[in-house]
Amino acid sequence: MPLRSDWSGDTCAVARGADVFADPWSVLVLREVFVGNRRFEGIRSVLGAAENVLSERLRRLVAEGLLRREAYGSGVRPRQEYRLTPAGADALPVLNALAVWAAKHTASPTTAEMHLYCTTCGQESTSADWCTTCIRPLTVSTTAWERPTAPGVRIDLAESFAS
Amino acid sequence: MPLRSDWSGDTCAVARGADVFADPWSVLVLREVFVGNRRFEGIRSVLGAAENVLSERLRRLVAEGLLRREAYGSGVRPRQEYRLTPAGADALPVLNALAVWAAKHTASPTTAEMHLYCTTCGQESTSADWCTTCIRPLTVSTTAWERPTAPGVRIDLAESFAS
Repeated sequence: MPLRSDWSGDTCAVARGADVFADPWSVLVLREVFVGNRRFEGIRSVLGAAENVLSERLRRLVAEGLLRREAYGSGVRPRQEYRLTPAGADALPVLNALAVWAAKHTASPTTAEMHLYCTTCGQESTSADWCTTCIRPLTVSTTAWERPTAPGVRIDLAESFAS
Repeated sequence: MPLRSDWSGDTCAVARGADVFADPWSVLVLREVFVGNRRFEGIRSVLGAAENVLSERLRRLVAEGLLRREAYGSGVRPRQEYRLTPAGADALPVLNALAVWAAKHTASPTTAEMHLYCTTCGQESTSADWCTTCIRPLTVSTTAWERPTAPGVRIDLAESFAS
C-alpha cells in the first residue's frame, strides 16, 4: 500500500501541484539547490536528513523533471551534482509563496526573516513571482534571497541555474 | 514517534511554510473552502477522504489559524461550517503557485485546465498573486478560478471569504 494517495493524474492543477510539492523534504531539497548547495553530502549536512530519505527525494525530483544530475570533478570516481531543470526553476514561486505566507503568519525563532529581492531594480518584493516595484516577473534569473541565517547577504539565485 | 519531522519552529520561512502546506489533503481542503465548499460532508464527498483523515486536517487547519468554525442553521443540533481566516485567505498564492506550475509542467488528463482571473479587470493572470494586466495584487477579494471541471465558469473567490 502506498504511503499516501496519488494526485499526479488529477484533473485539478492544484492537486497535481500538491502531489509534487506537498512533501517538506522535497521543498527543502529544492531550496538548497536554489541557493547553490548541489551535492548530496552538502544537502544532507544542512537538512540533517537520513541518507535514504534524501536519496529517495532526489530520485523523485529527478524523475518528476525538476532536477537533473550532472557529473563534476575529474577524479577516478565519477561524482554527480544536482541542477535545476527549467521546470525546477519554475518552482521558485511555490517556495516564495510558502516563505511570504510563513513570514507573515508563523512565529520565527529569530528576529531575522527571509526577504525576496528583485535583482533588476534591487528592491524587496512581497509577491511570490512579480517585482512589486519595477513591475516585471520575478524568476530564478531576477531573484535574490536574503536568508535569516545571514542577514544583509543577498544570494543571487541566477547562479543556481547557470550551467 | 511523529509521522514526520516538524519544521514549525524552523528559522527559515520556506521550511515553516512547508510544514503547514506540505500535506496534499490540507491543500485540497483549503481549495474546497476557497470555492465555497465549507461543510464536512461536502468536502468529504468531493475529496473522497476518509472521515478520520478529513477530521484531522480540519482540526489542524483550525489549530494553525487558517480556518475557523462557524455555526450555521437553526436546528436542534448545532452544525458547523469552515471559513477562511485572514491567514487562510493569504494562502491563496500558495495554491495559485502550485496550479500555475502544474498546469505548465504536468500532464492533465483533460484538455481543460485551471485558469486564474483578476476580477478587477477580468483578464487572466499567470502570476500567483499579482494581476499581470492591471498590475494590482491578486487576493481572495480580486481572484476568480476557472476549474477544468467547469470550463467557462468563473468562481469568484471573494464569496468564500465573505461573512
